[in-house]
Amino acid sequence: MKQVKVIGFDADDTLWVNEPYFREAEVKFCQLLADFMPALEVNKILLATEIRNLGLYGYGIKGFVLSLMETAVEISNHSLPHSVISPILDLGKELLQKPVILLDGVQKVLQELNGQFRMVVATKGDLLDQQRKLHKSGLEDYFHHIEVMSNKGESDYQKLLTHLEINPEEFLMIGNSMKSDILPVLNLGGKAIHVPFHTTWEHEHVDEEVDHPNLIKLQKIEEVLEIIPGKN
Amino acid sequence: MKQVKVIGFDADDTLWVNEPYFREAEVKFCQLLADFMPALEVNKILLATEIRNLGLYGYGIKGFVLSLMETAVEISNHSLPHSVISPILDLGKELLQKPVILLDGVQKVLQELNGQFRMVVATKGDLLDQQRKLHKSGLEDYFHHIEVMSNKGESDYQKLLTHLEINPEEFLMIGNSMKSDILPVLNLGGKAIHVPFHTTWEHEHVDEEVDHPNLIKLQKIEEVLEIIPGKN
Repeated sequence: MKQVKVIGFDADDTLWVNEPYFREAEVKFCQLLADFMPALEVNKILLATEIRNLGLYGYGIKGFVLSLMETAVEISNHSLPHSVISPILDLGKELLQKPVILLDGVQKVLQELNGQFRMVVATKGDLLDQQRKLHKSGLEDYFHHIEVMSNKGESDYQKLLTHLEINPEEFLMIGNSMKSDILPVLNLGGKAIHVPFHTTWEHEHVDEEVDHPNLIKLQKIEEVLEIIPGKN
Repeated sequence: MKQVKVIGFDADDTLWVNEPYFREAEVKFCQLLADFMPALEVNKILLATEIRNLGLYGYGIKGFVLSLMETAVEISNHSLPHSVISPILDLGKELLQKPVILLDGVQKVLQELNGQFRMVVATKGDLLDQQRKLHKSGLEDYFHHIEVMSNKGESDYQKLLTHLEINPEEFLMIGNSMKSDILPVLNLGGKAIHVPFHTTWEHEHVDEEVDHPNLIKLQKIEEVLEIIPGKN
C-alpha cells in the first residue's frame, strides 16, 4: 500500500446504509400492486424495467421511481388505479429523505486515515441526492471531494484517475460491490479492498469468486486499519 | 480579460438548444390534460410543483417528469386516467433522446479559443443526460471536463473555483441565464459574458437590469471573439 496517494470510498452500503431502503420501497411497491400479481413476479418485472432503463435514466432514486411507474403501468395492463400513482411518487420522496445511517467502523477508519491520504467519495446515483447524503453524514470534512459518476466502468475510473492526476497504482478503492468498486479498478492496475454488505442489488452481483494480487478481502471496514495503520 | 485562465461555458441554451424541448413537452402535457383544465392553468400548477420539488429532485429531465406526474395527479383530482400516465413517461424518454443542436457560432468560438484557455462546461441537470449531450455534441475535445452542478449559486461556483485551483478574477463564465450563470460569478469577483437565448424558463428570470464592470452583454456568442481575439 506504500504507493497509494488517493483512497476512493464507495458511498452506498460502504459508508452508509442504502440498499435496504430500496428493498423496503420494493416491498411497499409490491403491496400496492398485490391485486394484480404476486410480489415475486412484480419484482422480476421491475428488475427487467430498471435494467432496460439504466442506459437512459442512469442510477439513482429518480430513475428508480420512473421505473416503478412504468412497471406499474405494465403490470396493471394499462388500467392502473389512480390510487397507486401518488403512493409511488411518495415512495421516491421518502427515499430522498431517508436518514443517513453510518455503517459500523466508518467514522473510526476515516478519522485514522485522515491526513495520511487524499480521500474521495466515488459513487453512482443522483448528483443532488449523493451530495445531500454526504452532507447529512457529517463525513464531508474527511473528503477532498465527492465524485458522482454516471457509471463505474473502467473508462469512468480512468477519467477519475486523470482528473486526480495520479497513476493507477497510486489509487486504492474501497467498496462493497465487486462489479462496480473492485473489478474495474483492478483491471486498470489499481488496488482494491472489498468489504461486503449483507444486501446487494441483483444487477450488481458477481457470481465467480474474484482473486487478484492487488485485492484484499475483508469482513468489516474497521479491518482496513490492520492493512493501513492509523495515526494513533 | 488578461487575467482569465479558465472559461466556463454554460451548456443548455448557451452551447445547444434545450429550453424549447421543455416548452414542447409542456405543450404536449397540457394537451393530455385538456379535459381537466385550460393550458395556462396547467402550466401555472406545473411551475409551482417544479419549484416546490427543486430542493428534493434538483434540476434535470427525471425530476421534471416526476413533477409532471405529480401535477397530473393534482389536476385530475386524483382520478387520473391511466391513458395519461404512459404518455407522460414517454415525454421524459423523448426528452432524454432529443438531438443535440448546436447554437450558431458555438463551434467557431470554441475552435478559436481552443488552446488559449482551459475551458470547462459548467451545467445543472441530470449527470448522465448532460454527459450524453456533451458527447453527442461533438464538442467534448474542446473541454478539460464537464462539471455537472446540483445548483448554480455562489457557494457552488466557489467549490468549482477551489476545484479548478484558481482565483475568482481568473474565471470567466459565459451563459444565457443572468440568475445562474452571471450574478453568482460576478458576486464572487469573477468575470461574465451574457449571451441571451430567446426562451428562458420562468424560474430563471431576472427582472431588473444588471450592470457591472465585470459583465459584458452580447447578442450572439460569436461576438465573444470581438472581446477575446481568436487564434486566427
